[in-house]
Amino acid sequence: MSRIDDLLKEIEPRDTDYFLITDPLNIQYLIGNPRLFDSNFNGALLLSKEIQILLTDFRYIEIAADADLSIEIRNIKKSIANEVAEISREGNVVIEADHLSVSAFNRLKSVLEKVEPRSGLVESLRMIKDENEIEKLRKAASVGDRVFDRILKVIEVGVSEIELADFIESSLKEEGASKVSFEPIVAGGPNSAIPHAGATDRVIKSGDFLKLDFGCVYQGYCSDMTRTVVLGKASDRQKDIYESVRIAQATALEGLKVGISGGDADALARDVFTKKDQADYFGHNLGHGVGLKVHERPTLGSRSEESLKAGQVFTVEPGLYFSGYGGVRIEDMVLLKEDGIEVLTHSTKELIEI
Amino acid sequence: MSRIDDLLKEIEPRDTDYFLITDPLNIQYLIGNPRLFDSNFNGALLLSKEIQILLTDFRYIEIAADADLSIEIRNIKKSIANEVAEISREGNVVIEADHLSVSAFNRLKSVLEKVEPRSGLVESLRMIKDENEIEKLRKAASVGDRVFDRILKVIEVGVSEIELADFIESSLKEEGASKVSFEPIVAGGPNSAIPHAGATDRVIKSGDFLKLDFGCVYQGYCSDMTRTVVLGKASDRQKDIYESVRIAQATALEGLKVGISGGDADALARDVFTKKDQADYFGHNLGHGVGLKVHERPTLGSRSEESLKAGQVFTVEPGLYFSGYGGVRIEDMVLLKEDGIEVLTHSTKELIEI
Repeated sequence: MSRIDDLLKEIEPRDTDYFLITDPLNIQYLIGNPRLFDSNFNGALLLSKEIQILLTDFRYIEIAADADLSIEIRNIKKSIANEVAEISREGNVVIEADHLSVSAFNRLKSVLEKVEPRSGLVESLRMIKDENEIEKLRKAASVGDRVFDRILKVIEVGVSEIELADFIESSLKEEGASKVSFEPIVAGGPNSAIPHAGATDRVIKSGDFLKLDFGCVYQGYCSDMTRTVVLGKASDRQKDIYESVRIAQATALEGLKVGISGGDADALARDVFTKKDQADYFGHNLGHGVGLKVHERPTLGSRSEESLKAGQVFTVEPGLYFSGYGGVRIEDMVLLKEDGIEVLTHSTKELIEI
Repeated sequence: MSRIDDLLKEIEPRDTDYFLITDPLNIQYLIGNPRLFDSNFNGALLLSKEIQILLTDFRYIEIAADADLSIEIRNIKKSIANEVAEISREGNVVIEADHLSVSAFNRLKSVLEKVEPRSGLVESLRMIKDENEIEKLRKAASVGDRVFDRILKVIEVGVSEIELADFIESSLKEEGASKVSFEPIVAGGPNSAIPHAGATDRVIKSGDFLKLDFGCVYQGYCSDMTRTVVLGKASDRQKDIYESVRIAQATALEGLKVGISGGDADALARDVFTKKDQADYFGHNLGHGVGLKVHERPTLGSRSEESLKAGQVFTVEPGLYFSGYGGVRIEDMVLLKEDGIEVLTHSTKELIEI
């Protein structure tokens, strides 16, 4: 059964319902070919009980035709709104509320009888990975592990954050990735206290915390991992911070299970910090889903009530950040299974002194 | 005067108007620091006659504070919607209709008195480049030219499209770019007939058209150029197609001037094809603006009524595509000035046989 069939089975459309999928990743996910179109693609997939039509402009007709998609492909003559109006007539057109802009929504409303915004239609399916997707995520994570090994050999006092970020990017590609899943974060010394620092021209100094957060895209699927190392011998304060984060991360991994809410998952790590009066220095969520996008559902965060399910792949990444001093984050990618978890990243989490 | 002041002067807010800028590029453009945040940034800028506040979550507070922005920086405690409600009270909150999703819009509406979607607030400013931006776009274009020179030295029968795409990407970085502005299009033989083909593992053969469309980001600003070459001696049919596109492109450059509409600009090239009964094989627009994004306003296309203005930078890229056979596109980046144009890309447009 195709993913489109899965979706239609899930949402049980009435005879008059049409679903307009406009998020390019959702479209490519549903047609089972997540890398078919480049980033300029702006077509749509229109689905109902009766029809499955890919609407695309001239530029992608041939690419779509060659891909043998077993759905109808139609050239957009004037606009997506007009094509949809012609096909759906007086039907109810459900749109992707999280993707469609207010402008695009208003353009649809001007030519359609009934437009209904709905959230998470395809994202709910995407959250649960099938075996094929899991295998790609495993491989994406293993590319990251191999690159971490390489990084350890080139880190030294005097090299700049940008040089290391470039090294990470080229190494990810050499190890089989098609591209980075986000610009690598390489943050040394006080910069490591900034949760999302870009790499700067600051050079690595002895005594630095060095935080490395990076990921790649492998056959369309993303990886994401973070390790933090120390340049030279770690001070007592560094050891204490690192150990807190390491224990919080291990505690979270230990406590994860099917059915736990995103909020309770987050609390597994946060409570460890709270007991040491460090919770104020952990200002972000515990983790996020990873798949075709490097950040997707589910959210492991204090306000998330969604319960975690088998087949989800997400990060577990507690951190502590002390402004002006430095910070530590340890991030793994994890597959949640009926009987426990599989950690997809395998790099050591022991404190590394370089 | 800051760009925020420019914007407020342009839109003349009433005392009760608040402008909520949520597009990260628009935010960074307005604060005059287009590369301050990474792609995870999801804060907002709230502006009125009285206030200029950057709302951001914990992760970017320190980055924003360090950047010395001369605007207030505020940590988002619960949600952007709640922060905006607290500040704007009963005011009229204007949002970016082209950027905000329907879901985000509905979240705002649930806590705000009055929300008004509007399009192109900041994009209208961004269309007109200042000297500093033009200089960066010139440099971005010249990186592309230097890389095209390099490519010519490595193209040979037997090399694959993907190998060439990787070469382009690494060369762009070696020549000073921070990254590609889009994944390079390297399309040989029949693939060149696909306007937006990704690079495949197809190897270059003698007799191929080889279409190379690539660009980079230099200090936040994008470049975009296309050249098409022939492997070996060009056939008469290849020469004829190439010459049509070359003349159409030259004719368009010749006819561009301040005040012409995007539709009339497009027609400059399209009419050349029409006279040769080739217009059906030119299925896309003539060009698009280039700046912080590689595709932005203005649009040079048959349905565009917007008139072109001095200070705009856009592409001029006619093409002809014959399915199963091959295609040609020639694309320059152009600055429109009061007294004519400046072509920012300088690579030759004579037919190159390799």
